[in-house]
Amino acid sequence: MRIAFQGEIGAFSEQAVRAFAPEAMPVSFPSFEAVFEALVQGAVDRGVVPIENSLFGSVHVNYDLLQAHPVRITGELKLRIVHHLMALPGETLATIEEVRSHPQALGQCQAFLKTHLSHARQVPVYDTAGAARQIAEERLAHAAAIASAAAAEEYGLEILARGIESDYTNYTRFLLLAHQEEAFMPSGEGPFKTSIVYAMKENVPGALFKSLAVFALRDIDLLKIESRPLVGRPWAYLFYLDFTGSLSEPVVQRALGHLEEITAYLKILGSYPVGPEF
Amino acid sequence: MRIAFQGEIGAFSEQAVRAFAPEAMPVSFPSFEAVFEALVQGAVDRGVVPIENSLFGSVHVNYDLLQAHPVRITGELKLRIVHHLMALPGETLATIEEVRSHPQALGQCQAFLKTHLSHARQVPVYDTAGAARQIAEERLAHAAAIASAAAAEEYGLEILARGIESDYTNYTRFLLLAHQEEAFMPSGEGPFKTSIVYAMKENVPGALFKSLAVFALRDIDLLKIESRPLVGRPWAYLFYLDFTGSLSEPVVQRALGHLEEITAYLKILGSYPVGPEF
Repeated sequence: MRIAFQGEIGAFSEQAVRAFAPEAMPVSFPSFEAVFEALVQGAVDRGVVPIENSLFGSVHVNYDLLQAHPVRITGELKLRIVHHLMALPGETLATIEEVRSHPQALGQCQAFLKTHLSHARQVPVYDTAGAARQIAEERLAHAAAIASAAAAEEYGLEILARGIESDYTNYTRFLLLAHQEEAFMPSGEGPFKTSIVYAMKENVPGALFKSLAVFALRDIDLLKIESRPLVGRPWAYLFYLDFTGSLSEPVVQRALGHLEEITAYLKILGSYPVGPEF
Repeated sequence: MRIAFQGEIGAFSEQAVRAFAPEAMPVSFPSFEAVFEALVQGAVDRGVVPIENSLFGSVHVNYDLLQAHPVRITGELKLRIVHHLMALPGETLATIEEVRSHPQALGQCQAFLKTHLSHARQVPVYDTAGAARQIAEERLAHAAAIASAAAAEEYGLEILARGIESDYTNYTRFLLLAHQEEAFMPSGEGPFKTSIVYAMKENVPGALFKSLAVFALRDIDLLKIESRPLVGRPWAYLFYLDFTGSLSEPVVQRALGHLEEITAYLKILGSYPVGPEF
């Protein structure tokens, strides 16, 4: 099984691929759009994309891509983002003069950097795994990267300090995607959740409230709501909902039937087991 | 009156400042955060920030900054984003070999560029007004920028083609901000809208639905909902709502009193007249 992800080898998205399917082959793509295209064209069997981070919010472009492509969500998981400081073998905290990473990762490790590496230059780069790769490939002395343990292993760097982030509530939620033709009803134990996207009919007063009532009146819990612009109709929106339950449950089917009565557009993005944390 | 905005002179945010207050002095800042800080510290009288684009969605960082600073929204307006092609005097479409602009602006003008400038190199730069400034300051021959009419005027460039974007439904909504101490109840004709941000109490079933019911049950229309992560509580959210009506109306006061019963946190961001289009 080949699973597409965005980023360099050692990226957190690759870790998510390995957590979803340890036996699968992760295949790197340069953009989220390329991940969706590869999946739709059958170049890979599955795709994995980040959809939400607990500190920084939704990855909105992936909501737009989910809506625009014939794909289905078949799983999710939550990955705790743990940052390590790594460098070429032989370096120590005392020899480091420069720290490279993604600006968000540098930001999350400021307390550590101020205490232990206040003299070091901070260099923002495109991604965390890319910072590790640069140091390894260019044999950069006195330079350290902030990245994942997987990146250290992939590029043969030594970890100088572990878990150096200040906020331990930093999780990214990843989705496992299949082609729409290939997807299946969720099996296993549950609990399940279902994701949909819809647009209301024009000029329905209290439209958003009515669409949520469809679920509330059936004791279906809403887990997340996200709004995105409806392109071509300024100040109208597409709504993305996650709610508890599976498409295989009659109450969910009835709720979606009710929702269709009041929406101009409805796409089911998938039912899948509520994801574990890694 | 000094009004802070983010970007270069000639940026769309500066146009918004001039539309809000033609007699005011626009003051340029390098980041949205700097605009908020200047306003809070009293270095300027007002601030103007983009909050939402009709094609690309919300400017989420400005939601976070609104929540975190003692500011109040006192107005809004919608600016149609019109792109022009501009170059040093003497250039024509036939002499242009390179087009510079923000990647979004280049993307919005692809149909024009393919038809009229298919031979020209496309160079992405940080912002549209910045592209115009580079061409003017560096006296770049055979180069054109895609930017606003205000940028052409500011930097002494000649407009070679007007309104070259493909999608005419491209609007950005801007907010006018005052210090919380300075803000006032909205006056004038209305209609008005009110913006708030809140977090639900933990473990309230159907919490989001109940919070929207507060408005629906009083026939107050919801205009927009945005969710952002509640930092420190993974998978819990802050909700930003825009709804019709003003804080000066008893029905709005009662709705907000009801909302306080079920929320752990509530901040009123302001009541202001529904904004005109420019």
